[in-house]
Amino acid sequence: MPFTSFLPIPPTSHFPIQNLPYCIFSIPDVSPRVGVRIGDYLLDLAFLEQYALFGPLLQGENVFARPSLNAFMAMGKPAWREARAVITDLLRADNPFLRDNPTLREWALIPVESATLHLPVEIGDYTDFYASRQHATNVGIMFRGKENALMPNWLHLPVGYHGRASSVVLSGQDVRRPQGQTLPAGGSAPVFGPSKRLDFELEMGFLIGPGNALGEPIPVEQAEDHIFGMVLVNDWSARDIQAWEYQPLGPFLAKNFATSISPWVVPMDALEPFRLPGPVQDPEPLPYLRPSSPGAFDIHLEVHLQTAQMSAPDVICRSNFKHLYWDIRQMLAHHTITGCNLRPGDLLASGTISGPTEDSYGSMLELAWRGERPLQLNSGETRSFLQDGDRVTMTGWCQGEDYRIGFGEVTACILPTKMEAQP
Amino acid sequence: MPFTSFLPIPPTSHFPIQNLPYCIFSIPDVSPRVGVRIGDYLLDLAFLEQYALFGPLLQGENVFARPSLNAFMAMGKPAWREARAVITDLLRADNPFLRDNPTLREWALIPVESATLHLPVEIGDYTDFYASRQHATNVGIMFRGKENALMPNWLHLPVGYHGRASSVVLSGQDVRRPQGQTLPAGGSAPVFGPSKRLDFELEMGFLIGPGNALGEPIPVEQAEDHIFGMVLVNDWSARDIQAWEYQPLGPFLAKNFATSISPWVVPMDALEPFRLPGPVQDPEPLPYLRPSSPGAFDIHLEVHLQTAQMSAPDVICRSNFKHLYWDIRQMLAHHTITGCNLRPGDLLASGTISGPTEDSYGSMLELAWRGERPLQLNSGETRSFLQDGDRVTMTGWCQGEDYRIGFGEVTACILPTKMEAQP
Repeated sequence: MPFTSFLPIPPTSHFPIQNLPYCIFSIPDVSPRVGVRIGDYLLDLAFLEQYALFGPLLQGENVFARPSLNAFMAMGKPAWREARAVITDLLRADNPFLRDNPTLREWALIPVESATLHLPVEIGDYTDFYASRQHATNVGIMFRGKENALMPNWLHLPVGYHGRASSVVLSGQDVRRPQGQTLPAGGSAPVFGPSKRLDFELEMGFLIGPGNALGEPIPVEQAEDHIFGMVLVNDWSARDIQAWEYQPLGPFLAKNFATSISPWVVPMDALEPFRLPGPVQDPEPLPYLRPSSPGAFDIHLEVHLQTAQMSAPDVICRSNFKHLYWDIRQMLAHHTITGCNLRPGDLLASGTISGPTEDSYGSMLELAWRGERPLQLNSGETRSFLQDGDRVTMTGWCQGEDYRIGFGEVTACILPTKMEAQP
Repeated sequence: MPFTSFLPIPPTSHFPIQNLPYCIFSIPDVSPRVGVRIGDYLLDLAFLEQYALFGPLLQGENVFARPSLNAFMAMGKPAWREARAVITDLLRADNPFLRDNPTLREWALIPVESATLHLPVEIGDYTDFYASRQHATNVGIMFRGKENALMPNWLHLPVGYHGRASSVVLSGQDVRRPQGQTLPAGGSAPVFGPSKRLDFELEMGFLIGPGNALGEPIPVEQAEDHIFGMVLVNDWSARDIQAWEYQPLGPFLAKNFATSISPWVVPMDALEPFRLPGPVQDPEPLPYLRPSSPGAFDIHLEVHLQTAQMSAPDVICRSNFKHLYWDIRQMLAHHTITGCNLRPGDLLASGTISGPTEDSYGSMLELAWRGERPLQLNSGETRSFLQDGDRVTMTGWCQGEDYRIGFGEVTACILPTKMEAQP
């Protein structure tokens, strides 16, 4: 049985002592700072830092009394491990230091419901990949037919594109339906209006710690030294805007109105027990994309949909991060092979994570197969794409023997287009 | 005859008193700060700010003693105009204040050759458009044939995509040839190695001042209130990497290894006398892309190429910013129509600016027509794409009656791939 915290944490909690994800939070009269989630509490690292509770690497660095994780992330794995060891030790059931000091506990442990959460990182650049073979195949079949489903490059490199960093928002911030140009079916001229094919994409993102200098690729074997942790990502997509705009330079407005992320950055060390081999890669990738060890992670993922009429959500997708064809080390090594520089806080996302079964597809586009088989909801309603008032919630966790390493959730409700904002 | 400065400025100088572009510079023992170029000098705005020489909007704002223009840019047009009026007044031939005070002049005016220039802005997001009809047509003919040269969407919207902000570098920083995957002609599996089709793209970029809130589009008529100024942009491109990777999500590694910009940010007010109507747009764009006044600018542009063997460069392209089909207000309005938020310091670039004649094409791809008619250089050498040691310099200016509003130059030399960096 693994060690436990002195705080009571049920086995289905996402936040046991084995997890310890980072966040940025504030409370009245206390400015945004770094916290760690444990059960229903946040451990205030800026407070601990002030009392010199960390080790030699973090001592005096002042990385926790800041409104983003970037400075801490930039320090690299030895500092992350030092912090994690200290925090783990403080929270253990057999350590009386914090456990038996009510005053210290009151200062250091903040009930999560009393805190305001903030975007955990200042994202310099956001990159989105397309690393699920099933997703790429599904989209390919829909738009190009079964014979040409996968593009010729797909099995040779992790296809990716640059996303929009400014519109990455925190879970809980609602998302306004975008307006734009679309081409009506059978038409030759575009029309203007709110998107009629608003969709979610179930993704996960990883955040960069130390970056690399321009011109210096990161070898695939060193990639994990540059990865701080992971979050849930909902890459909102307007399929009708995308279909009209995307040739030949890729998605632009269809994806830049919002990307939601979860507030808890789960450290890679917490995911380590759930590492496993990914799908066999055939053809074998070029040497720069050939890591020598397993790089997938067994993370159960779900998408919940709740319409305005429903009192509880339906689970409309059950998928798993392990289905991804390309792993995060390969995405990172590929991204930098030209010499492109990553910086602390950069967000790299996986692309839609679709599994092999029809109930594991990670987007409405696939679940309702481009509207051909609308989703039947428990309320009796149907959905091909998202309607105003719909709430999409994604969640995910690794299941240990008697604990979970959870990601919490990323949730948002669809707001109607703000018509008065129309130019 | 326009007013003049007390500093001697020849009529072919890019930097007369009518221009006054901003930059970030440092000198020994003086940290990076905002300067204005006048002739061969930099006016130190942080120094002037200290002596309270600005007006009510800038007084006490402390926006010039900073390592980027972002804070000043965020203030908006009234503050920009206040600064420009004060600076113009200080530099006028008929104002004795600075002219006749040798001590003040020594402190406030720094010879440009003694200063180090820095990237003028901290770029949050970089977006690249594809706004030249001639360029899109040329590329279309090469890759899809004459019949399908322009995609169906092209005349209806300014096609664009998200670029990489981290690798935007200052003019003068040399560019390493990227390595990556390419598909050999007639092959079915990719090979790895240095790009063999390294190219430049002659572009101009505009920089965002005040941004917009997420969900609030900027109407096309208000677009110029959000545009601080312009720079020259060389959007380096690896054509062979691009051809293999770009389906279906657009250019990624082919463009993310470097984008060079010029150090001088020319304010929009300096370009005002050179405003003129752009090409007729037929079909008429949708209302949100329909400004009521002219929005093109008459900016002469040149690309110079100097190989390692040449003692002076050849001019290989003469183009003009006025050839762009979509104007900068349309690009900005389109970018935000979904509610995408722009932030101060964001860079939006035009895409390759090709004119109607063969010597006005803004890339090697077009000038040498995909290698079918290599460029003949004065040295006797030929070029289809860039070789190691080649220096590419772009320059541009507006020609007034007896003065020029110049952009200086953006220049870089191609360095060989760093083979030891290969993973």
